[in-house]
Amino acid sequence: MIVTITPNAALDTTYAVQALVPNASHRVSTVHSRAGGKGINVARVLTGQGFPTLAVTLAGGATGDALRAELKGSGVQFDLFPITGETRRTVTVVADGDATVFNEPGPTITPAEWADFRDHLGAVLSDTDVVVLSGSLPPGVPATAYADLVRFARAHGCRTILDTTGEPLLAGAAAGADVVKPNAAELREATGESDPFTAAEALRATGAGTVVASLGADGLLAVGEHGRWLVRPDRMVLGNPTGAGDALVAALAAGLAAEHPWPYLLREAVAWSAAAVAAPLAGDLDTNALDDLRAGVTLEELRCHS
Amino acid sequence: MIVTITPNAALDTTYAVQALVPNASHRVSTVHSRAGGKGINVARVLTGQGFPTLAVTLAGGATGDALRAELKGSGVQFDLFPITGETRRTVTVVADGDATVFNEPGPTITPAEWADFRDHLGAVLSDTDVVVLSGSLPPGVPATAYADLVRFARAHGCRTILDTTGEPLLAGAAAGADVVKPNAAELREATGESDPFTAAEALRATGAGTVVASLGADGLLAVGEHGRWLVRPDRMVLGNPTGAGDALVAALAAGLAAEHPWPYLLREAVAWSAAAVAAPLAGDLDTNALDDLRAGVTLEELRCHS
Repeated sequence: MIVTITPNAALDTTYAVQALVPNASHRVSTVHSRAGGKGINVARVLTGQGFPTLAVTLAGGATGDALRAELKGSGVQFDLFPITGETRRTVTVVADGDATVFNEPGPTITPAEWADFRDHLGAVLSDTDVVVLSGSLPPGVPATAYADLVRFARAHGCRTILDTTGEPLLAGAAAGADVVKPNAAELREATGESDPFTAAEALRATGAGTVVASLGADGLLAVGEHGRWLVRPDRMVLGNPTGAGDALVAALAAGLAAEHPWPYLLREAVAWSAAAVAAPLAGDLDTNALDDLRAGVTLEELRCHS
Repeated sequence: MIVTITPNAALDTTYAVQALVPNASHRVSTVHSRAGGKGINVARVLTGQGFPTLAVTLAGGATGDALRAELKGSGVQFDLFPITGETRRTVTVVADGDATVFNEPGPTITPAEWADFRDHLGAVLSDTDVVVLSGSLPPGVPATAYADLVRFARAHGCRTILDTTGEPLLAGAAAGADVVKPNAAELREATGESDPFTAAEALRATGAGTVVASLGADGLLAVGEHGRWLVRPDRMVLGNPTGAGDALVAALAAGLAAEHPWPYLLREAVAWSAAAVAAPLAGDLDTNALDDLRAGVTLEELRCHS
């Protein structure tokens, strides 16, 4: 089984407006809300592709209830650990195809709640192959929390994929996460290196198994003990790039769980990522386009780097 | 007792961000939520000033629960009529003192729900002097709903104050609302007349008892069977103008309930409105400033109009 852990899940609300005018009052024409947070999107993709997956998050308050209600209808298996704080929301204002996003910081998690959540995970992980750790950490949770969960998951015999930023990314890589998946900007920010290849090598040198850097429409760069690859789609897909990174992580998790060889797994990751751009909502893939996208992926093995 | 009716109440959420940048992603630093909708703000002001007031609204879903929880802690007496739809939210993004507002349309009310709500109001109105009808009508409720409630309230021996826009304003005025309170823009939009005095006369001629047009920082214009007045504050108050109109309506309701003479009542309305601007949150008055503001209000009786 694959388990996705989203410590700072959100109810993602999308507002459609005619035009975004700063300092004005807007009539919102349509409102759409969906359970979100990177790990939940990863679980949606995996569930949609037929991989047994459990989405684990912390949830509280009325927004936590709304999150639960939406997940119930989604078909995604979930496990919401109750907290006293209120689950956060994100609001995305869409006007004329452009999106302006407001991310609430999230509820403060007490040390006791986090300790109880970690204990609870112990039971969940007994039957798990791959653990995906996704997104920001909520207020109150130390920056070392993902690093701790990487070690905790390994102690339970699970491999780990970490998709986060900044200090939690660096600490998680140093703790030996099997895969870390920053995008190019996150990789640059975390390492201070502007060249993605140099930055990926640097991050891997701290302890991560494989660094998979998503390069947006240019595909991905992977650096690990089994090789170095540059994997590219053969076309520019127009659509909604939100969730493309989550689809990429979903493919990595599916490939790791199935023990696919890296070249196969990375091709799938680029194809799923492109199919996510082609689908309107984060967490969905345009499965009609998938075969065609998959056929177009090119993989270049990088033999050395000066 | 004063009853405020807010058919389309909202949970008003305020997001503080560093700067609003269209098409970018924003980290929200603080989130503050409060029960809102014009009638609820009116009830807050009246409760704060010691006038027995009941805030009546329709509420449903998780956001309705959040509305209820916030009202419970506020000291405002309330009566939330349950609906199957989910109460709407408004999101105000504040950056550098400027506010950008997103208003959700609200849940669709079924004809059966509205009929039940109206029946429910019958019991509430038996002990009521003044009914305040505030804000937009939610989807599913006909534009004549306020006009119907004006007649319904009158049949129960209540006077009515109507604060809405467009067709519901015109229909409510024609049904004989005792007071209608558009602002200058709403008055112009409803009547097609650009001069506020001409527009107020035109609206009154359709059937309203008194038209009180709020003129923002310039005070108000009132046209009724007992006279015509221009009432002005003696200073420009800096602060948050959101809720100034609701404070004005609250003063009108308090004055009508106490049967104060119009000149006294209108002076109070301008003073309360200015005191609301001086207070940071809609529904609050800066009571320390109130005496001073009251002393500065000037009232001019308009003898005729050519």
